[in-house]
Amino acid sequence: MTRPRLRDLGITIGRLPPGPYNAITDVPGVRVGQVSVIYDHPQVARTGVTVIAPRDGAVDTDRVFAGYHSFNGCGSVTGLLWLEESGQLSSEIALTCTYSVGTVYDALIRATHDGYGSHLPVVAETYDGFLNEGPAFHVTQEHVLHALSIASGGPVAEGNVGGGTGMKCHDFKGGIGTASRIAETQCCTYTVGALVQANQGQRVDLVVSGVPVGQEIGPDVVPLPQQSPDEEKSSIIVVIATDAPLLAFQCRRLAQRAVIGLARTGSYGHNWSGDIFLAFSTGNHLKALPTEPDTVTMLPNTQLDPLFLAAAEAVEEAILNALCAAETMVGQKGCVVHALPLEELVRVMRKYRRVGGPV
Amino acid sequence: MTRPRLRDLGITIGRLPPGPYNAITDVPGVRVGQVSVIYDHPQVARTGVTVIAPRDGAVDTDRVFAGYHSFNGCGSVTGLLWLEESGQLSSEIALTCTYSVGTVYDALIRATHDGYGSHLPVVAETYDGFLNEGPAFHVTQEHVLHALSIASGGPVAEGNVGGGTGMKCHDFKGGIGTASRIAETQCCTYTVGALVQANQGQRVDLVVSGVPVGQEIGPDVVPLPQQSPDEEKSSIIVVIATDAPLLAFQCRRLAQRAVIGLARTGSYGHNWSGDIFLAFSTGNHLKALPTEPDTVTMLPNTQLDPLFLAAAEAVEEAILNALCAAETMVGQKGCVVHALPLEELVRVMRKYRRVGGPV
Amino acid sequence: MTRPRLRDLGITIGRLPPGPYNAITDVPGVRVGQVSVIYDHPQVARTGVTVIAPRDGAVDTDRVFAGYHSFNGCGSVTGLLWLEESGQLSSEIALTCTYSVGTVYDALIRATHDGYGSHLPVVAETYDGFLNEGPAFHVTQEHVLHALSIASGGPVAEGNVGGGTGMKCHDFKGGIGTASRIAETQCCTYTVGALVQANQGQRVDLVVSGVPVGQEIGPDVVPLPQQSPDEEKSSIIVVIATDAPLLAFQCRRLAQRAVIGLARTGSYGHNWSGDIFLAFSTGNHLKALPTEPDTVTMLPNTQLDPLFLAAAEAVEEAILNALCAAETMVGQKGCVVHALPLEELVRVMRKYRRVGGPV
Amino acid sequence: MTRPRLRDLGITIGRLPPGPYNAITDVPGVRVGQVSVIYDHPQVARTGVTVIAPRDGAVDTDRVFAGYHSFNGCGSVTGLLWLEESGQLSSEIALTCTYSVGTVYDALIRATHDGYGSHLPVVAETYDGFLNEGPAFHVTQEHVLHALSIASGGPVAEGNVGGGTGMKCHDFKGGIGTASRIAETQCCTYTVGALVQANQGQRVDLVVSGVPVGQEIGPDVVPLPQQSPDEEKSSIIVVIATDAPLLAFQCRRLAQRAVIGLARTGSYGHNWSGDIFLAFSTGNHLKALPTEPDTVTMLPNTQLDPLFLAAAEAVEEAILNALCAAETMVGQKGCVVHALPLEELVRVMRKYRRVGGPV
Repeated sequence: MTRPRLRDLGITIGRLPPGPYNAITDVPGVRVGQVSVIYDHPQVARTGVTVIAPRDGAVDTDRVFAGYHSFNGCGSVTGLLWLEESGQLSSEIALTCTYSVGTVYDALIRATHDGYGSHLPVVAETYDGFLNEGPAFHVTQEHVLHALSIASGGPVAEGNVGGGTGMKCHDFKGGIGTASRIAETQCCTYTVGALVQANQGQRVDLVVSGVPVGQEIGPDVVPLPQQSPDEEKSSIIVVIATDAPLLAFQCRRLAQRAVIGLARTGSYGHNWSGDIFLAFSTGNHLKALPTEPDTVTMLPNTQLDPLFLAAAEAVEEAILNALCAAETMVGQKGCVVHALPLEELVRVMRKYRRVGGPV
Repeated sequence: MTRPRLRDLGITIGRLPPGPYNAITDVPGVRVGQVSVIYDHPQVARTGVTVIAPRDGAVDTDRVFAGYHSFNGCGSVTGLLWLEESGQLSSEIALTCTYSVGTVYDALIRATHDGYGSHLPVVAETYDGFLNEGPAFHVTQEHVLHALSIASGGPVAEGNVGGGTGMKCHDFKGGIGTASRIAETQCCTYTVGALVQANQGQRVDLVVSGVPVGQEIGPDVVPLPQQSPDEEKSSIIVVIATDAPLLAFQCRRLAQRAVIGLARTGSYGHNWSGDIFLAFSTGNHLKALPTEPDTVTMLPNTQLDPLFLAAAEAVEEAILNALCAAETMVGQKGCVVHALPLEELVRVMRKYRRVGGPV
Repeated sequence: MTRPRLRDLGITIGRLPPGPYNAITDVPGVRVGQVSVIYDHPQVARTGVTVIAPRDGAVDTDRVFAGYHSFNGCGSVTGLLWLEESGQLSSEIALTCTYSVGTVYDALIRATHDGYGSHLPVVAETYDGFLNEGPAFHVTQEHVLHALSIASGGPVAEGNVGGGTGMKCHDFKGGIGTASRIAETQCCTYTVGALVQANQGQRVDLVVSGVPVGQEIGPDVVPLPQQSPDEEKSSIIVVIATDAPLLAFQCRRLAQRAVIGLARTGSYGHNWSGDIFLAFSTGNHLKALPTEPDTVTMLPNTQLDPLFLAAAEAVEEAILNALCAAETMVGQKGCVVHALPLEELVRVMRKYRRVGGPV
Repeated sequence: MTRPRLRDLGITIGRLPPGPYNAITDVPGVRVGQVSVIYDHPQVARTGVTVIAPRDGAVDTDRVFAGYHSFNGCGSVTGLLWLEESGQLSSEIALTCTYSVGTVYDALIRATHDGYGSHLPVVAETYDGFLNEGPAFHVTQEHVLHALSIASGGPVAEGNVGGGTGMKCHDFKGGIGTASRIAETQCCTYTVGALVQANQGQRVDLVVSGVPVGQEIGPDVVPLPQQSPDEEKSSIIVVIATDAPLLAFQCRRLAQRAVIGLARTGSYGHNWSGDIFLAFSTGNHLKALPTEPDTVTMLPNTQLDPLFLAAAEAVEEAILNALCAAETMVGQKGCVVHALPLEELVRVMRKYRRVGGPV
């Protein structure tokens, strides 16, 4: 990864500080594993899978409270009915492309030895059919198992990687992005991390830190001949993690704040967009088959505002980190999606006085 | 009230035992206060208000987790957005008639000295315009304050009382009913109580313990000349209380089981029906303005089945208790709604071998 | 299938008449295709897939309004976010077992040539792991494609067939069941059909037409040694079809009435149950990629009650038809699930005077 | 109103053009009526009521499809259960203060002569207790009836008027604001209008057209001695109208886009905030008591994006119009809330190169 992250360009989002990695992995116990699937024969593959594994991979037996929010539901995320009914997440979360949902779903079931709830894994998708040839099933169960096995804490690869490999965002190259924030409540300090698979938006709408960047810059995507811009299926999946002890309904509330970050990068929820947000809290440990009442900790609603702000900021920055990290990619039929030109980005930010230096 | 309750007739519902009063007040700390408003001049009043007060009336500062479910939303229940968003109930619940929602709402605000959330009181209504003359505002703020002041534990008056004064149910006289169940989980024993304001249904559909009673008995209601049966606005409000330590989403799940009891009395959710169910748990104590994380107790999802069954049974019996208790009433313009004839009920139940004795 | 249907035993449900086949296929254009997967080596397979194909199989380009309701969400149904967001169904609905969701999902994508929305197919599951050996992936994409190819109108096989092959219901053998009703509104006559994959419930709770059958009869299931009754993952998927011109939100309302039928057979929504209901209306034709406003027909809300009753009755009878049709099955490790003994059923119904003849 | 609107300052929001009045009344048939209640004895009143009347006031018999979205539910909006269940709006929408919900509710019922659904009026509130003395019931039924009687099309008063009289927004004076957009779909041109009662947010978060205005300017509010900033109950109610023929679920989708506009002015949904959005479409005429199927027009989902963008832009500008219009107000106990200083606003916008002229 030689491209700088957003913050390296002198552009900051919001007013809360990031965690040490400025990544979802700043939340203790959250691991990320990614496998990219890139080849040109027999079909052109530009895809992959990203797994988010709470509890260092043991979420099937040491569960977390969780919730979700759908801003626009043109997407498939499996397992949400049980996540909502039980208030808990009992499987890893996998992000992949539209055509690989079935395979990844099977792989997560296969990876599971416990039978209570993890029969209902959470697999989310966005559509990479511009660069990635389809209908095809490039991602295999082995890819998924490998992503699980290499999931780790620490820095997270961004851009053209894992489930984000073939994605585009505001007609630039998109993909995986992450960020985090440290939030102070009246009593305590917590971390909120976000990871996105960013595939949403049109050029004209891109906003960076309040600046209408999309109206100022950019080489065009080389389009597929048969594809008009109107047919774009743009989507974004957001996963938010926190160590604050939130109950299920509070996780849902946190997830809903992802739309704030999304809005500030210029999106407004296209009809064809699957803008779906999940949040989980590692602050309580829930057994798979308890028989007695559990004692759990709840951060009061009155203390949530710093976390809400943290989630909004982390999602906004994660989207922009995806755009900063992703490199130009050539896909099927010679299609090209160009990277966001960072020099141009900085020039525009200077013009609008959002970073220092000569205009 | 000299009429027997359902159980006094030898008819039992389900397989779980009731609590000592077979009433929502079997849940410790739950009080009920009711004021009936009955007069003939200047307009005919057959209405009133029923308040359910958790925490012996101190729910504004010692809150309870809560949730709701709407089976059919042709009704008004105020305060539900905040109940759902906060996961908590912070006011008493008041049941009244359609025209008195505003007044009761104001009265609950006036009764409150604390300013955090109880500006958003929970007032539910069903429509008693068959017997009760309207549009009119018979219920006054003083009635509500009096109901609050006399709220108590112990036996609960049923039938033509409080908010249920002018209601009808399956074209018999309806109103307030209550019941409770004792539920055993793997570890513990809990109480589930239900209180209903029953105003729903048509004669033909009434079912008692599986027997199609409505198809077998009943003197007709004397109808208002201008009112055809199709225009009926039938509704039921259900309030479920438990001392089991449920979180907000589990309260919602419990509330949803009210539809089971309702279904078994013959309802199927008419378009014009407001079939809305609330549930709260006294098993945790939530401060109004906490600044630090709270420790709360959660009954695991795996232990909820006995509570679900208890809620279904208590709601079914509460509806039938309302029908058993309510006496024939004459209302505006000479309209009459007849009481369920209990001898006929028993005769039919014998015919179908659901109670003993000669057919 | 030589076992009689419920009605052949003289037991009727409700007061509305059924359609000609008393099946979901009484709704014009609705086809059902089923493939059962039964073998003993290398693993024991007792499973399959059932597809419901509106529009004689052309739903991807000639779409239908649709909605859903989850009574208890311990199950996986893919595609619901888009179904809700778009108000439409754009794929066939497939019912299968828990382990086959991924494969069936892939197969439905593969079967689709159109790219707008049908990337998000609707696959529902219940858990047949008592008889069917797992974790395994017995259902192949070819099975699904075959089920699509043989989907037809007319009579529908019930019991141990398709997705219902290995299911059990109230500890008797369950599976696929169907029924229909003719509903008269003030202006028009419509058909409502239901199809269920019935895998829910415990013996003690089974109710048939108001009679507590489950408390009166039944040889026990031969249990798996390692499985206690508490671990049962009981679920039911319901699909409701109608030719009444309902909009999306009215389909959701119709789907919600499935819980009435379910309640009357004795269920109350166990924690481990995925009780999920879908409804669609063939009364309007929606293009896949329209550019101009569509003219659609809406049955007014005021006319929905007969349809609500029809849905409740059809679901109740469909569940009982599944129980009547399903034959005793031996599965993995010698486990047996016995058929509902129909002579005993009739005897009990006579005892409670719900069918004629000597007690 | 001598203060300029946002656009008069050279600041534009988004890329779509406004309608002739840049107001919700640009949607044909939509009327707005407002009554402000301002006096100092016996208590200090700084409050009022705003009514939005579709169909030139005849919405009770000529109904509109409608939907809503709650971004954060710390607020009370009556009538939402029936609005959602029926998919329709059958009463005017009234905006007032927290303490006046009951009175306004009663007044809307009293104003209604038709009995089908309009027993369930839609009343929304935000909390003006900083300037307006309470608990008190300053708004009378007569105020509401007067607002209904003077409701009209054309320009809409903004700022300290009607329900917005005593509101504050980002610690400046807030209140009523409105804006509109013209949206072009592939076939047709439609109008989308928004009206807000803006009472949300903290100074530091205020953003105008991407510029962090709140971090750059502003005289402080003179606080109530006993009130700390943390106790702020900030809220915003948004009403969106369109003449595009949307069905109920599409109205809900439109309402959900209000959060985009809200996000771009700096909000992120505080815990104590009631951020609730309603949308209705005048593009279809629904009878109150139809007996036959209605023919209605539906704009396809594929054509909604321009309307989504229009809603987002109109809401953003409506909030800023409220801030521009509202004048400094002195309330109870000498509290002052200052108007947004427009010269400072323009200076900051120049600094960030969002309007022309010297920095």
